[in-house]
Amino acid sequence: MEDCIFCKIVAGEIPADIIYDDAQVLGFKDLHPQAPTHVLFIPKRHIATVNDLRPEDAALAGQLLIAARSYAAEQGFAERGFRLVMNCNADGGQPVYHRHLHLQAGAALPPGFGTR
Amino acid sequence: MEDCIFCKIVAGEIPADIIYDDAQVLGFKDLHPQAPTHVLFIPKRHIATVNDLRPEDAALAGQLLIAARSYAAEQGFAERGFRLVMNCNADGGQPVYHRHLHLQAGAALPPGFGTR
Repeated sequence: MEDCIFCKIVAGEIPADIIYDDAQVLGFKDLHPQAPTHVLFIPKRHIATVNDLRPEDAALAGQLLIAARSYAAEQGFAERGFRLVMNCNADGGQPVYHRHLHLQAGAALPPGFGTR
Repeated sequence: MEDCIFCKIVAGEIPADIIYDDAQVLGFKDLHPQAPTHVLFIPKRHIATVNDLRPEDAALAGQLLIAARSYAAEQGFAERGFRLVMNCNADGGQPVYHRHLHLQAGAALPPGFGTR
């Protein structure tokens, strides 16, 4: 997608602080961190939203989660814990239309989340 | 797992308001909803946390996301949007040690999340 900022990061056309890279998934630091650790994992192939996942994309979708837990283990916060969030469309508050998984860690995140 | 409340729901030993059921994934309403729509998707096989996902579990992990987006489409809120959250261990605020994916929808969820 020519106008997609995340596709441009995958293509190396826009710089990012890359923290994870495998055949299907790229991970980089969020520019506006909401937690001490806040990184994003995206599929290298452009998929706009969770709604655009096809049943045959299950393994790719899961690879984002595998990437996140690998990073957590490598960084040493897997046991303390972390939060994974994926927003979809307007009600979810999705700002960039290339599907991305947030990983937040480094503090005790509040037990409640959502509308309150 | 004998003592796992979510495994007991899968086994039909504890009642739940089931909203999704496929070969690998069960979905049911959260008992303490934090949004107008708040449901959980779990793998039927006991996996304690995201940390316990093995690389070969990618397709199963992704099937939780496929289940969530199928439910969103069926219920008619896919286009308005929704939020998916997975908490891991203490810092993530994980209350039940059987991995589960939250789906929240039905309102404009706040753009920020995490420690603030």
